[in-house]
Amino acid sequence: MTPQTPSPALGPASEPANADGPAYSFTDREATLQARKQTETLGQRPGALVIREGALPPRLFLISYDEQTLTEQECLSYDELWASFQAHPELRHWIDVRGYGDLALMERLMHDFALHPLQMEDVLGDFQRAKVDVFDNNRLFLVSRMTDFTSDLEIDDDQLSIFTGPNYVLTFQDDYDDCLNSLRVRLRSNFSQIKRKSSLYLAYALSDVVIDHYFPTMAAIGDYIEGLEERIFSERRERRMLNRILRIKKDIVRFRRLVYPERDKISEILRLPEEVVPEDVKVFFKDLYDHAMQALDLAESYRENITSLTELFLSDQSNRMNEVMKVLTIISAIFIPLSFVAGVYGMNFQREAPPAGPNPLNMPELYSPWGYPGVLAFMTLMVAGQLYYFWRKGWLGKQR
Amino acid sequence: MTPQTPSPALGPASEPANADGPAYSFTDREATLQARKQTETLGQRPGALVIREGALPPRLFLISYDEQTLTEQECLSYDELWASFQAHPELRHWIDVRGYGDLALMERLMHDFALHPLQMEDVLGDFQRAKVDVFDNNRLFLVSRMTDFTSDLEIDDDQLSIFTGPNYVLTFQDDYDDCLNSLRVRLRSNFSQIKRKSSLYLAYALSDVVIDHYFPTMAAIGDYIEGLEERIFSERRERRMLNRILRIKKDIVRFRRLVYPERDKISEILRLPEEVVPEDVKVFFKDLYDHAMQALDLAESYRENITSLTELFLSDQSNRMNEVMKVLTIISAIFIPLSFVAGVYGMNFQREAPPAGPNPLNMPELYSPWGYPGVLAFMTLMVAGQLYYFWRKGWLGKQR
Amino acid sequence: MTPQTPSPALGPASEPANADGPAYSFTDREATLQARKQTETLGQRPGALVIREGALPPRLFLISYDEQTLTEQECLSYDELWASFQAHPELRHWIDVRGYGDLALMERLMHDFALHPLQMEDVLGDFQRAKVDVFDNNRLFLVSRMTDFTSDLEIDDDQLSIFTGPNYVLTFQDDYDDCLNSLRVRLRSNFSQIKRKSSLYLAYALSDVVIDHYFPTMAAIGDYIEGLEERIFSERRERRMLNRILRIKKDIVRFRRLVYPERDKISEILRLPEEVVPEDVKVFFKDLYDHAMQALDLAESYRENITSLTELFLSDQSNRMNEVMKVLTIISAIFIPLSFVAGVYGMNFQREAPPAGPNPLNMPELYSPWGYPGVLAFMTLMVAGQLYYFWRKGWLGKQR
Amino acid sequence: MTPQTPSPALGPASEPANADGPAYSFTDREATLQARKQTETLGQRPGALVIREGALPPRLFLISYDEQTLTEQECLSYDELWASFQAHPELRHWIDVRGYGDLALMERLMHDFALHPLQMEDVLGDFQRAKVDVFDNNRLFLVSRMTDFTSDLEIDDDQLSIFTGPNYVLTFQDDYDDCLNSLRVRLRSNFSQIKRKSSLYLAYALSDVVIDHYFPTMAAIGDYIEGLEERIFSERRERRMLNRILRIKKDIVRFRRLVYPERDKISEILRLPEEVVPEDVKVFFKDLYDHAMQALDLAESYRENITSLTELFLSDQSNRMNEVMKVLTIISAIFIPLSFVAGVYGMNFQREAPPAGPNPLNMPELYSPWGYPGVLAFMTLMVAGQLYYFWRKGWLGKQR
Amino acid sequence: MTPQTPSPALGPASEPANADGPAYSFTDREATLQARKQTETLGQRPGALVIREGALPPRLFLISYDEQTLTEQECLSYDELWASFQAHPELRHWIDVRGYGDLALMERLMHDFALHPLQMEDVLGDFQRAKVDVFDNNRLFLVSRMTDFTSDLEIDDDQLSIFTGPNYVLTFQDDYDDCLNSLRVRLRSNFSQIKRKSSLYLAYALSDVVIDHYFPTMAAIGDYIEGLEERIFSERRERRMLNRILRIKKDIVRFRRLVYPERDKISEILRLPEEVVPEDVKVFFKDLYDHAMQALDLAESYRENITSLTELFLSDQSNRMNEVMKVLTIISAIFIPLSFVAGVYGMNFQREAPPAGPNPLNMPELYSPWGYPGVLAFMTLMVAGQLYYFWRKGWLGKQR
Repeated sequence: MTPQTPSPALGPASEPANADGPAYSFTDREATLQARKQTETLGQRPGALVIREGALPPRLFLISYDEQTLTEQECLSYDELWASFQAHPELRHWIDVRGYGDLALMERLMHDFALHPLQMEDVLGDFQRAKVDVFDNNRLFLVSRMTDFTSDLEIDDDQLSIFTGPNYVLTFQDDYDDCLNSLRVRLRSNFSQIKRKSSLYLAYALSDVVIDHYFPTMAAIGDYIEGLEERIFSERRERRMLNRILRIKKDIVRFRRLVYPERDKISEILRLPEEVVPEDVKVFFKDLYDHAMQALDLAESYRENITSLTELFLSDQSNRMNEVMKVLTIISAIFIPLSFVAGVYGMNFQREAPPAGPNPLNMPELYSPWGYPGVLAFMTLMVAGQLYYFWRKGWLGKQR
Repeated sequence: MTPQTPSPALGPASEPANADGPAYSFTDREATLQARKQTETLGQRPGALVIREGALPPRLFLISYDEQTLTEQECLSYDELWASFQAHPELRHWIDVRGYGDLALMERLMHDFALHPLQMEDVLGDFQRAKVDVFDNNRLFLVSRMTDFTSDLEIDDDQLSIFTGPNYVLTFQDDYDDCLNSLRVRLRSNFSQIKRKSSLYLAYALSDVVIDHYFPTMAAIGDYIEGLEERIFSERRERRMLNRILRIKKDIVRFRRLVYPERDKISEILRLPEEVVPEDVKVFFKDLYDHAMQALDLAESYRENITSLTELFLSDQSNRMNEVMKVLTIISAIFIPLSFVAGVYGMNFQREAPPAGPNPLNMPELYSPWGYPGVLAFMTLMVAGQLYYFWRKGWLGKQR
Repeated sequence: MTPQTPSPALGPASEPANADGPAYSFTDREATLQARKQTETLGQRPGALVIREGALPPRLFLISYDEQTLTEQECLSYDELWASFQAHPELRHWIDVRGYGDLALMERLMHDFALHPLQMEDVLGDFQRAKVDVFDNNRLFLVSRMTDFTSDLEIDDDQLSIFTGPNYVLTFQDDYDDCLNSLRVRLRSNFSQIKRKSSLYLAYALSDVVIDHYFPTMAAIGDYIEGLEERIFSERRERRMLNRILRIKKDIVRFRRLVYPERDKISEILRLPEEVVPEDVKVFFKDLYDHAMQALDLAESYRENITSLTELFLSDQSNRMNEVMKVLTIISAIFIPLSFVAGVYGMNFQREAPPAGPNPLNMPELYSPWGYPGVLAFMTLMVAGQLYYFWRKGWLGKQR
Repeated sequence: MTPQTPSPALGPASEPANADGPAYSFTDREATLQARKQTETLGQRPGALVIREGALPPRLFLISYDEQTLTEQECLSYDELWASFQAHPELRHWIDVRGYGDLALMERLMHDFALHPLQMEDVLGDFQRAKVDVFDNNRLFLVSRMTDFTSDLEIDDDQLSIFTGPNYVLTFQDDYDDCLNSLRVRLRSNFSQIKRKSSLYLAYALSDVVIDHYFPTMAAIGDYIEGLEERIFSERRERRMLNRILRIKKDIVRFRRLVYPERDKISEILRLPEEVVPEDVKVFFKDLYDHAMQALDLAESYRENITSLTELFLSDQSNRMNEVMKVLTIISAIFIPLSFVAGVYGMNFQREAPPAGPNPLNMPELYSPWGYPGVLAFMTLMVAGQLYYFWRKGWLGKQR
Repeated sequence: MTPQTPSPALGPASEPANADGPAYSFTDREATLQARKQTETLGQRPGALVIREGALPPRLFLISYDEQTLTEQECLSYDELWASFQAHPELRHWIDVRGYGDLALMERLMHDFALHPLQMEDVLGDFQRAKVDVFDNNRLFLVSRMTDFTSDLEIDDDQLSIFTGPNYVLTFQDDYDDCLNSLRVRLRSNFSQIKRKSSLYLAYALSDVVIDHYFPTMAAIGDYIEGLEERIFSERRERRMLNRILRIKKDIVRFRRLVYPERDKISEILRLPEEVVPEDVKVFFKDLYDHAMQALDLAESYRENITSLTELFLSDQSNRMNEVMKVLTIISAIFIPLSFVAGVYGMNFQREAPPAGPNPLNMPELYSPWGYPGVLAFMTLMVAGQLYYFWRKGWLGKQR
């Protein structure tokens, strides 16, 4: 996950020809995946630590800082990290664990930082909704979900688990890339506010970066919706337009499912007592709450847009049928009566019925010198009359 | 933004011919724009002041008044404003900053009036939902959103940020025009209640003017909806009717998104303690609450109307198809059987098959003197019968 | 507004022929009207009294009573009313002001009965939602909305503003007619409970009459819906059926918008302290609450009915198209194959091609003596077969 | 109303032929009826007792019991009942009044059992939602609504009004039949728990029987829905299928409107203080609450089913149109080209134009000895090709 | 019920040919069944124990354990169980009763373990929503519903009733198979946490296993939905596709109805006082709450998917009609004009009308040597033009 969001609004233009396959599916595979993962741990003791297959080997990063200094290192072993951490009780530390693929290490972390097995299970499970727990009286366990809008139009979400301690913040994520680089850059700068504040403020700053990354995701979705709207009316509409609409709807629905708990988490933090979250940090969480609300407002807005889009699509579909019908009707209405006229003069009523003598009433037109031109003129008139009628009804132009 | 709302109900009549383009888009561009703006500030320290590109250079207005006097001036520099403000601690002041394009000035304002960086960020960010914060024990930070219904049928909204102080009110907006002129006129009048009341009352009066301006917006939307309803049934319906409906729906949805936080803001003010908002000012905010509720009631009402409009549109669409089908059916039903009759008498069954002798059963009608007139009479009868059938079914008139 | 509700269920039968015009509009003009009225007062000081154009000149009615006596008079001037009112502090008074068209009088009333300018503004504004305010510690300001279902199917609503005082009730309404006559009749009777109770009970009785008048409105709407349902299936359906449905839906939606605040008002009264509303009066308001709930229940029920009606209408519309298609299909399916057969025997393949000799394979049927009767018989068989097929499919009868 | 629910699932089979009339109406006549009833009492004093027209003359039943004994009688006069009741203050009594048609009697009951006129008005009004009132400190006034699903598919509901007293329970209902027989049978049994418990427990037992009778109503509705689902696909679908669906939907909506207040009533009872409802009776009301929730769950479930049913119906309707279109398309697509071919060989281009000489290019096919068989063979091939195409598209079989 | 969920995603492939019958019903039979069961007990005393017909004869299992030991036995009689239970007051016991078919046994259990008759009624009734009751001050009565997704796509749910006691947990279920085996396996293991904790923890562990089993059900539903989405577009769509969709929707709706009370149950447990549920057990219930929320999130997600699926289905249905129409239109539009041309040259206008002389204007084309080839060429051109027109409109390819 990188902070540079690829521009998926361009995506569809370059989609491969056989793109109607699963790529346009709108079923929530992430949901099914989660259900299946949960199924795998069936029958395990609550709080049992299980490393998922394919988990990356952990990398350990340590940033130690106070108001003046900052040292940043990747520790090659946990012992190294622990030594550095223990050596400087006067500094504040950000211990950043990326990748879960080492059970022994996870258990040592759990033990050394006094985490509850159920919390550790939430960390490794990797599909915990955003939440906050208070433990050990004044430590916080925060779960956030980092989102990214991938180039194939899926919302990719990763879990960021944050534990606070007196002079440290411990974070877990399952991937090496993340969206926290901007925060690291700020930390490195000389005048960063973070350095002057408590470790709780760092936890806030982490949550803030995560929520700020919801907006590029939203912007990408908004661009895509705008693109869809324009393409609905194009003469040669792409295939499976509705699939595309429904799929982006699924993304928005998923996004809301991710952000609602985030908002609830923050409002729970705002209700925590002064001893756990002091008033001067709450001011910042209040601001964060406003941001979460804005993200939700955007999501609601896009949801309305999708509903409009679907209505428009269905109306356009019905309109296209209408146009087909009009072509059929105009052509039939013009030529069927003409054919009838031609058919009349193709009848074989005999003027001369040899044995019985002449039947002058039988189709005298056929024998008139102006018969054929007369019929042709009559037919032309009929066509003109009908065309005028259809034109007046507005069937000849386009109408949507 | 001016208090004179242009009359958009007339708009569509004068729309350019190629108006089906983005002008009728119903995707919420404002939302996407906001998401993109938020994206730009990604990675910045919370409370960092950022001046958006294109921000206007600030203009500073100062209105100083007490019960008897009122002086009004545009200050050319902040120093001038500060001097005037400091020179008259016995007066009440309305300091009105329009345009954000000067970072140094903004920082001085923040410092001199003891604003929190997060508040200042909300001011400059320009997309804060309506809210109220209490700070410094009894000062208020109010955010309102001023709306305007533009001539191209968009709801334009600007942020009005209000800070109260012991003897002043400080407001920020990003545009030189605003909807507050009527308030200024009232202030200038000799007997204005505002002059006799606290600076908090001025903050109320500002919020009141903002909410009062929701009603012309609503009235314009109502007119437009009424116009749409009438045009749905016109014979030559305009193109992209549904787009127009969906677009005005988007406006209403946006309007609600703007006004709901406004209502919540006021009800939060009503719950503030007596020390912050005294009872005699609360009476006025209670009245304001009623106004906000009325605006929301109107919005809900219009939303229902839009739903009805959409249903009507879709039914009319289906009806038009029905009419096309009826034309096809009537013409086919009349002429196909006639053609068949003509076809029968166009068959070449031979009465005289030379070698074999006469076949008197073969199409004797063709040789009867009344054959042709008889067939024509029969055909006329058929047509008359069918027309009667269709007329009885009510297919010949219009029916909607 | 009169208590005799005209019977709108009969209305449509006598609608003029050109009734598709605005009479069937379902946009909420009342809403737009309100928005426009609110716009007019833009920029006025809150609490400024404004008399709307066209307001009727006020008429003043005074009913003074105690347990034994009752005097009723229309006062020709305010001085006369005030004198009568002041002369009998031992009686209870109902001062009934109808029509707002006299600013000076309104200001005197406001002053003499100690009303707040904001309250007076609510009275004159005439579009205040139902609400209750407590003022002067134990006086109540109640707003109710009186409804009427007019003969052109609109819900007409008027505002009734009620101020209570120690020994009087002061009411305002903008029209000379009202729905309170039944209450006056009860007052005049010798044994009326109202005479024995406090002035607050009179305020209750007024609210009760207003709510009781919701039911004739509901009954009229119910009758109209039932009529609509029956007419949907009539062979020659009226034009703009859906407009009618949507319009009555608008009425129901408006009705709910009027009654919900009424219910909230009463439940707020029930929560008022004993000093303001004594327990023995609350019993009556509790009963009133049940009535308001019943009115809302009815409105919800009708709303569901309207949804069903819309579904039925759309299904019937689709059904009518289906029937058109069936007629087309049956006629085409029968006659197109027949025409083909006739066409075959209209071909000119030559049995005798003079230079080349006889071609006995070329259409020998034409020369058979049974050719023509045979073909006719074959055609009859074809038709019979098809008719049987369509009958078995159930296409020949009606099916809905 | 009887406890034996007729089996309406069988109903439709035996419906009379002309059953499309009002019997299938889905408008809520009960609602309109109620509105009209309420209208009749317009202008009456709150608490005025009014006997509806057609009210049955009251019958008075008295069951007196203690742990050992039970006497049951129908009293022919109120004096007899009052004497029996007064004679045994040591027993518990269930006074059961059926029919309201005697105003004097009702007033005596109101007076003797110290009921409030508003309560009595609720009893006689007969359309009070389920509710509970506490009066006289510890007496309860309970209203329940008894439902029945009639053979013509309407939900019939009657009001059961229950007043508790120290040693008696007083019930009112407007009909002679009721659903309480099972309770009477239990009372008569020697070991009935009711006999050993307080009169409040009897009130509980009555409410319990009423709620238990919701389930046969629900079961009957469920059966009917299942029947509808099966019939949707039948080849010769009944007329007005959608009416039937919408009508059963109306029933479910009404049922919910009846049961929601019932649930709220019970949860209000559960919140009453220990003095009014002792804990050991609350246990039973808690169980009742679970039953009411189950009934609501069922109603929600059926509502979802009805939504599915409507979707299926509309899809099937569209499907039937599709099938009609397919028949038309297949026949047209086959025979129109064939007719064209026949038409070509019916043209009269002359091989020999006497004055000008032979035109050998003019339709030489007509003169070929294999012309006719060749054309027939070509036509057969065309038909075969098209049939193959339609079969491959899956248009020849049924598809839903 | 077994923990191995069959894979219903494969199901449809192997469905029997006549599978359109009730197997695809989407009415909620379980609901109707429940309503009917409730009807059967009509008129019974609350708390009366009734054994349903077909109830299995009870089997009694006893697991006794402390931190070191564990004995597991199936008791052949209740006396044996009671003896074993009484003999070891120092151990903790899990008494597991499967099958309800023995009224005397049930009554002994109720008496010996001091259960309330209403609770026992809930156990035997077998359709109690998930709930928690506190009784005897600190004992809990928990009801959970165990789900299973059967191979014929129904959600099968069974009730698990749990009573806690000082040193035992008593469970009831009506089937011999259950989903608790994984828990038994964990208990048998030497280091099980359960053995070290209170009996309340065992009750938690049981609830945990039940909720964990919701996830395989969800995963199976998710797989099925994904399968449905893929099959919607297949050329030869299966019959009754919509039935399948609606049926899986019914499953999801039922699932939510099962899980919502489960969540409420847990949140009620979390609000119980410390004496009833100690803090260290609450931590585990809090975790369980998260799991229930995840299950509900999944259900909401699938519900949205089903809505999308329905929209897609209906759009596809309309699309297929569109395609039928296009075939009809293309063939008609091509051949009807051609037939007209052929018809024209099949007219019999005479060039030579013997008595009157030559009519050279009558169809001279017929006598031109290039007449026939010319007409054929003209026809070919017409077809080419139309094909080009249709191709440009995009009607010749597929478009969805």
